[in-house]
Amino acid sequence: MKDVLIIGAGPAGLTASIYAARAGLDAVTLEGESYGGQIINTPDIENYPGIKHISGFEFATDLYEQAKELGAEITFDKVRSIEGSFEEGFRAICEYGGPVTARTVLIATGAKNRPMGIDGEEKFKGKGISYCATCDGAFYKGKTVAVFGGGNTAVEDAIYLAGLCAKVYIIHRRDEFRADRKSVEKLLSLPNVEPVLSYVVSGLNGSDRLSSVGLRSTGGGEAKTLDIDGLFVAIGQVPATDFLGKTVETDPHGYIVAGEDCATSVKGIFAAGDVRTKAVRQLTTAASDGCTAILQIHTLVGLIF
Amino acid sequence: MKDVLIIGAGPAGLTASIYAARAGLDAVTLEGESYGGQIINTPDIENYPGIKHISGFEFATDLYEQAKELGAEITFDKVRSIEGSFEEGFRAICEYGGPVTARTVLIATGAKNRPMGIDGEEKFKGKGISYCATCDGAFYKGKTVAVFGGGNTAVEDAIYLAGLCAKVYIIHRRDEFRADRKSVEKLLSLPNVEPVLSYVVSGLNGSDRLSSVGLRSTGGGEAKTLDIDGLFVAIGQVPATDFLGKTVETDPHGYIVAGEDCATSVKGIFAAGDVRTKAVRQLTTAASDGCTAILQIHTLVGLIF
Repeated sequence: MKDVLIIGAGPAGLTASIYAARAGLDAVTLEGESYGGQIINTPDIENYPGIKHISGFEFATDLYEQAKELGAEITFDKVRSIEGSFEEGFRAICEYGGPVTARTVLIATGAKNRPMGIDGEEKFKGKGISYCATCDGAFYKGKTVAVFGGGNTAVEDAIYLAGLCAKVYIIHRRDEFRADRKSVEKLLSLPNVEPVLSYVVSGLNGSDRLSSVGLRSTGGGEAKTLDIDGLFVAIGQVPATDFLGKTVETDPHGYIVAGEDCATSVKGIFAAGDVRTKAVRQLTTAASDGCTAILQIHTLVGLIF
Repeated sequence: MKDVLIIGAGPAGLTASIYAARAGLDAVTLEGESYGGQIINTPDIENYPGIKHISGFEFATDLYEQAKELGAEITFDKVRSIEGSFEEGFRAICEYGGPVTARTVLIATGAKNRPMGIDGEEKFKGKGISYCATCDGAFYKGKTVAVFGGGNTAVEDAIYLAGLCAKVYIIHRRDEFRADRKSVEKLLSLPNVEPVLSYVVSGLNGSDRLSSVGLRSTGGGEAKTLDIDGLFVAIGQVPATDFLGKTVETDPHGYIVAGEDCATSVKGIFAAGDVRTKAVRQLTTAASDGCTAILQIHTLVGLIF
């Protein structure tokens, strides 16, 4: 039986892997997709303390290699469910490999982009609809696109796309952006960006590919149609907690209820990073959680067994 | 009047400076000594996510330059006291410059390890003497080390090191440990831990690196010498909060009472990093606080003014 099973190899999970390896814990990390989590979609990170500029993909790769070099065991497999208890040990049922048994579990599965939930969204995915400006922006060089959203991610995506595309609309349901002042100032200074405030995307049109979007006013204005080549959706996130069922307590949005000590409602199960209830979801806070959770687990495992 | 005065340019304060600069806040950071805080004494960092190996000094310098390049205003001056309130604005009285006025204050003055105060301590720092088992323990894998101290930190450090090192002495001035009974039981059950009770470290020997320590009995016993590769000093930390007087609530050890949101007992005053009450004091947790505090301040300042 492992001391700890870490689920997820994003910034929180990989930081936990590093701390577990250095603490001499017998740990395994399972990742259902590719390492790095959401950060791999960020073209340029400049707010991570100690690194002036780095791409998200490069950062994730450095972090993965750092964990591997320190001896972390990282396996690519998807966890389907978690059974058991701290007293008898936990067991994770996986998609490919056999069950993994562990004294403690650290959930670091992060969050994913929220879909719009309107007709045609699935059909046009990859055919005009994207959830990642940095991944797919290059396919729209010189074209006309729209970003849907008004927070930091949406505004940063629009700034990024403005450097590639002929024209960028940014559609937001409120009458002002929620993003940092500096980002908004930057956005509004760009000549090829046009804000479409107090509107939401309500329809998706096109035959094979998306060719226009219908917009509904949230402020009593008239409906509009925008001819675009691509739509970048940036309206928020959903935590990756479906596989847990009712294993641990979650909030109404699905985030795992856990405080700064990363302890969940179940003894021996911890949650770190974007997947837990917290005010600020940044690289630094994910890394902090990965560190804190492992030190808590180390104490728990070290004292009892 | 500034939006925020950040006191301290260690990892928490400099991360706050970065986030403040990028958020468009009008901020100033005051540092009473040199930038970087305690981390500058760490010879090799290998547990900071994303950077495989770096010296503490190099890390601190990169962080300082990153903040400066993003436009942070950092001034070297010591804050003597803080007056005022959120409603009327705060005013920091400084040693050299005029008072600094600000809408909010972020205290990130950190803590210092209590030194042993014996000859050679400075010389062997980073060359056999460490004040952080979690940071530096991995460098002593398979070696013989001693922990000096008898409280929770010392006992936990010894347990942690016992998982990595061939042999761990734990030297304590009293005839029993002050730590939690459960931790002490765990400590005493470990085959490679040897308590050296009623002794204190009185001498440090070695040419380039520490090679042995001299021990003086506190109970009338004979003096001893222990051959060791590393000495982990865990006789306490002192938070840098003297200048605050009774401005904000502190715990009995002088740490500022503040939770994950970094809010103190006084509206508009926040505390980030090692200076606040928290379970884990690491680079990642300090950086996380710097980020979280500024985003809280951004909201507070943005909403009110």
